[in-house]
Amino acid sequence: MTHKTCKNVRLPIWICLLMTLTMQASFAQGKSTYMRMAKITVDSVHLSDYLVALKTQMQSALKVEKGVLAYSAVQDKNNLNRITILETYASVAAYQAHIQTEHFKKYKATVTNMVKELELTDVMPIAVQSKQR
Amino acid sequence: MTHKTCKNVRLPIWICLLMTLTMQASFAQGKSTYMRMAKITVDSVHLSDYLVALKTQMQSALKVEKGVLAYSAVQDKNNLNRITILETYASVAAYQAHIQTEHFKKYKATVTNMVKELELTDVMPIAVQSKQR
Repeated sequence: MTHKTCKNVRLPIWICLLMTLTMQASFAQGKSTYMRMAKITVDSVHLSDYLVALKTQMQSALKVEKGVLAYSAVQDKNNLNRITILETYASVAAYQAHIQTEHFKKYKATVTNMVKELELTDVMPIAVQSKQR
Repeated sequence: MTHKTCKNVRLPIWICLLMTLTMQASFAQGKSTYMRMAKITVDSVHLSDYLVALKTQMQSALKVEKGVLAYSAVQDKNNLNRITILETYASVAAYQAHIQTEHFKKYKATVTNMVKELELTDVMPIAVQSKQR
């Protein structure tokens, strides 16, 4: 076997090894992901202010915190004051770090008198998938 | 201006134009998106079969239907029979086409005796964002 042939064989092996490690890392992250669902009823008088505070918090968290992975925040069409937020963190530790951040504390302080009801539920993923674009 | 310089100027202009059109298309899609949230309580005896049927339906829909954009399906950690699915379609028409597909009809027929409660809510997005990886 020439030196050149060896190099040709080694490259695919290294690529396979790298892909395997990447897939394992991705799988491990999926296994430890921490998800929660927040059901919130907002005082209609404060709805527009609440939405500004919520969006600001989510954008800051996604931008600054490595462990904040995703937010899906929606309003009921027939009752815009009813909001559902599906939150995904890299781990429980990432969530605990999140609630200690300045942007989260600012959000909580801002909305404390705007929120009429808050129900938090720990959830686990069955499937979270979107179309590849 | 030499021919070479002209080409150098034209390329960034074409890239900008293409980016603008792409952003507009994305924005337009966002405006017409149809989202709904399904809250489902499954008979615990049938939970594992239900989850298989649900995953099969979601995978088929995402693969085959252009207008099915995303599913986020989760279970309550303290009551695995309680399931929430956040569904995103390209439009109301895409949803109406979806419920006429063979894979959706098969899913409905399969789970009809497994589901104890079903609550459907039309929702609209406040923000649906995930970390860029």
